[in-house]
Amino acid sequence: MSGGVILAMPSEFSLIDRYFARATPQAVLGPGDDCALLAPSPGMELAITTDMLVSGTHFLPDTDPFQLGWKTLAVNLSDLGAMGAVPRWVLLAGSLPKADEVWLAAFSEGLFACAGRYGVDLVGGDTTRGPLNLCITALGEVPVGTALRRDAARVGDDLWVSGRPGLAALGLAQLQGRASLPGVLAAQCIRALQQPVPRVELGLALRSESLARAAIDVSDGLLADVGHIAERSRLDLEVLAEHLPPLPAGAPVDAARHCQLAGGDDYELAFTAPSENRSALAALAAGLDLPLWRIGRAVAGSGEVRLLDAEGQPVALKQKGFDHFG
Amino acid sequence: MSGGVILAMPSEFSLIDRYFARATPQAVLGPGDDCALLAPSPGMELAITTDMLVSGTHFLPDTDPFQLGWKTLAVNLSDLGAMGAVPRWVLLAGSLPKADEVWLAAFSEGLFACAGRYGVDLVGGDTTRGPLNLCITALGEVPVGTALRRDAARVGDDLWVSGRPGLAALGLAQLQGRASLPGVLAAQCIRALQQPVPRVELGLALRSESLARAAIDVSDGLLADVGHIAERSRLDLEVLAEHLPPLPAGAPVDAARHCQLAGGDDYELAFTAPSENRSALAALAAGLDLPLWRIGRAVAGSGEVRLLDAEGQPVALKQKGFDHFG
Repeated sequence: MSGGVILAMPSEFSLIDRYFARATPQAVLGPGDDCALLAPSPGMELAITTDMLVSGTHFLPDTDPFQLGWKTLAVNLSDLGAMGAVPRWVLLAGSLPKADEVWLAAFSEGLFACAGRYGVDLVGGDTTRGPLNLCITALGEVPVGTALRRDAARVGDDLWVSGRPGLAALGLAQLQGRASLPGVLAAQCIRALQQPVPRVELGLALRSESLARAAIDVSDGLLADVGHIAERSRLDLEVLAEHLPPLPAGAPVDAARHCQLAGGDDYELAFTAPSENRSALAALAAGLDLPLWRIGRAVAGSGEVRLLDAEGQPVALKQKGFDHFG
Repeated sequence: MSGGVILAMPSEFSLIDRYFARATPQAVLGPGDDCALLAPSPGMELAITTDMLVSGTHFLPDTDPFQLGWKTLAVNLSDLGAMGAVPRWVLLAGSLPKADEVWLAAFSEGLFACAGRYGVDLVGGDTTRGPLNLCITALGEVPVGTALRRDAARVGDDLWVSGRPGLAALGLAQLQGRASLPGVLAAQCIRALQQPVPRVELGLALRSESLARAAIDVSDGLLADVGHIAERSRLDLEVLAEHLPPLPAGAPVDAARHCQLAGGDDYELAFTAPSENRSALAALAAGLDLPLWRIGRAVAGSGEVRLLDAEGQPVALKQKGFDHFG
C-alpha cells in the first residue's frame, strides 16, 4: 500500500509528497516504492520508536508549522538519544484536513531543519486526509549490547537529569493564559515547548563513554518518567528536593516546582550513573554546555519514586505526571 | 518520548497497552522502553513501510474491529510482500476517541491474528487520545540487492496480476448501498474489503525464485498502480482487456470492470516477468492456489499505461484510480 484508500484519495495529496522529497544518501532506496530499503551497519542493533502527535492533544491547533515540524521529529530523536543510538532514518505518516501549501512548506522546513541538524534521512511516509495527526517512526543504530535501557539502574547509582525540566510546561501555561511570566522567561519557556532540543549528543556520550547505566527521556514529567526506571530496574529512586535545578527567576514558585517535577514535554534525559562517574559527568556537562544535575540516588526497593526534603522526609505529591483525563 | 503529552494524557490509556503486550521473540527488546531494539540479519537489507488509516477516509467508522485490526496490519505486510521481503517486526501508533475495551480487545485480536499468520512481532508503539487513526510501521528483510522494485521492469516483460482485483471495491459499493450483489458474492467482496490477504508468500516466491523483475501492491486501483511501474521503469505498459481476469458472475458488468481496473484496496500484487518464466509462474500459481493472470506487456515508452481491446485499439478510461477528491 502506498496511500491506498477506499473512500477518498485527494489528488492534491500527491502534491504534498513534493514537500517531503529530498535526497536520502543514507538509504539504499528512498521514498517512491512500496518500501524504503536500508542497509543496517554490521555490529549494530537497530533502535526504533514511533510517536503520534495529535492536534489538540499534543499541540495547539495554531502552533507555528515550522516549529511543529521540528518538534514532530525532535520528540522521536529524543527517544533515540535516550537509548544512546545514532539517529539515521525516519518515516513520516500524516493526515491533514486540507493541503495548505503555506502550512506544508513551513512544516516541512521545520522537519528538515531538525533532520539536517541530526543527520537523518526521511526515507518514506504516507500522507492522507483526516484530522491533523502526525506520526514519525525513527530508526537509529547502537553497538550490540550497549543501548541505555530503563532496566539497567543499580542500587547505589546516582540519579541525574539534564537541562531545565519544567520550562516547557511553563510555556504551555503561558500560552494558555494560566501563567503570566516576564518577557524573556516567557519566550524561553515557549521555545522550550515548541522547539525542544533532543539530547542526542548527550545520549551518545553517555553510552559511548560508558558513563550512564539506565536512561529515559523526560516527556511525561520528571517524577513519572524516572518512575519507569525504578519499575523496570526493580529499585526505588529518591529525588532530593534540595538537589533539583534552581527554579527560573520570575516564575511563581509553586507552579514552577510543579512543572519541574510533573510538567511533561521536556525532552531532557534522566539517567542513573555510578558515583565514580561524577567528575566525568561534570566534564561532559561542560563539554556539551548543558547542565547535568545530580538529583538523587537509587536505593533498594520495588519500583517507587520518593521526593525527600532536606531532612530526608518524604514530600507529599499531588500528581507525578500529567494525567488530567481521569 | 513514550506517549508524551502536554494537553491531556488519559490514565485509562496505560491500560490500552495491555492489549498490545505480547511476547516478542524476534526482538532484542520489545515494548516498554524508549525504543525497541532489533538485531538485523547479516546479509539482508531492511525493507520498511508506514501506512496511516483514518476513520472515514480509509475505513467506515462502524467497521468490525477484529477485521480492522487485521487489515491495519495486512495493508503494511502487503507492501513488504511487494518487495519480496520477509516480514519481521511492526510498530503500531494509534489515536482513539475513547478507551473502549470491547473494541480494543477485538481490534488487538485481529491485529495479532494477522501478526501470527505472518510471523511478525509487535515491538513497539504509542497510543493516545484523538480522532480514530491507526498507523503501522512494518519492517522486513530481503537479501542485499534482490528486492522487487518498481523501477526494474524491462521492455518485453509480461505484466501479471494476482487474485481477483476489484472485489474489494465491489464490497464497498455493496456496503454503501451503491450495489446489490447476490448473497455469496456480496459476502466474498465484503470480506475482500475488510480482511484482505496480503500476498506475502507470492512476493517471497517471486523474489527468491527470481521469477519477477518489478512489483507493486495494488492498493489504489490496478491501472493506477501499474502506472507507477511504468513511470519508474521508464516504459509503457499495455493491458489487454481480453486477458483480464473474468468478472464475478452476478455483478453488473460495467461496475465490476471499473472496480477491477480502478477500484483500489485490493492488495493483490502486480508484477512484470520475463516471458520465459510463464510456465514457472503457472506452476507457482498452482502451488500457492492463487490465480496469476498475464494481463499485458511492457513496451518502449515514457511511463504510460494503455488498455487495449481485442483489436489492439485503446479503450478510453474515465479514471485510472480513486481520485474522488478533486
